[in-house]
Amino acid sequence: MMTHYDAAADIREWLERHCRAWNDDDVAAMFEVAAPDLHWVNVVGMHWQGRDQALAAHRAFFARMFAGVPLGLVAIESITAITAEVRIAVVRWQLGSYVVPSGETIEDEENRMTLVFSGADERLQLRHVANVRIDAMAARHDPVAGIG
Amino acid sequence: MMTHYDAAADIREWLERHCRAWNDDDVAAMFEVAAPDLHWVNVVGMHWQGRDQALAAHRAFFARMFAGVPLGLVAIESITAITAEVRIAVVRWQLGSYVVPSGETIEDEENRMTLVFSGADERLQLRHVANVRIDAMAARHDPVAGIG
Repeated sequence: MMTHYDAAADIREWLERHCRAWNDDDVAAMFEVAAPDLHWVNVVGMHWQGRDQALAAHRAFFARMFAGVPLGLVAIESITAITAEVRIAVVRWQLGSYVVPSGETIEDEENRMTLVFSGADERLQLRHVANVRIDAMAARHDPVAGIG
Repeated sequence: MMTHYDAAADIREWLERHCRAWNDDDVAAMFEVAAPDLHWVNVVGMHWQGRDQALAAHRAFFARMFAGVPLGLVAIESITAITAEVRIAVVRWQLGSYVVPSGETIEDEENRMTLVFSGADERLQLRHVANVRIDAMAARHDPVAGIG
């Protein structure tokens, strides 16, 4: 299932750089290899259209709640080649506790993120992100055994 | 922002067929133009790897909770051409009430779904889905104005 995993050093490196940028509160670095037409759907279903919007939203959220909140890469679950030019990664992230604008504290969040990349190596570009909170209670009822 | 929207009659048609198949409880029809290497991340973060797993999971969930639950297409928010061969749609679905295995009733769910397609027209294939529940409370705090 880990299609082209060994050939995916560029994506592994992107993920490690992204993680370092997050932990350094360096939002600009998080979007360095993002395409201008990047779309980003976050864990509560906000849809940012274009790199500028995704960057502005992350700047606002770092100022408000994410600065200093540690992010860790738990697993690269799959990297699938859609064509020679496009690969999709599904990865798991763990995030430290943070307080959302409504006042609720989100603890021990683990997310499953879909990332669509075009190009490779020096031409690698992030084109799309969709991020889903993992519901640990629901996971017990996954009808497909042996996953996750 | 609706890149190549007018050229996307095949994707619009796919979405309408998918919606009809859901409302007919016809799981096989939902996956008719899905590729064997389809990955699907659902709203609670389950990750199904391959069309066979996605199909089996949906069969189980229709038997358990989705049969007869109406699905409606609210909006096609964006269709972005990643390359000539790959397009990504972001769409909003509204789902009738249903009871999850833990006993909780999910009411008035609205989801924002990312769908990755390769090919076009008769060669159109679904390659990846990531589906996110929209948190209406959180949406009020979206730092990017004019979205959603």
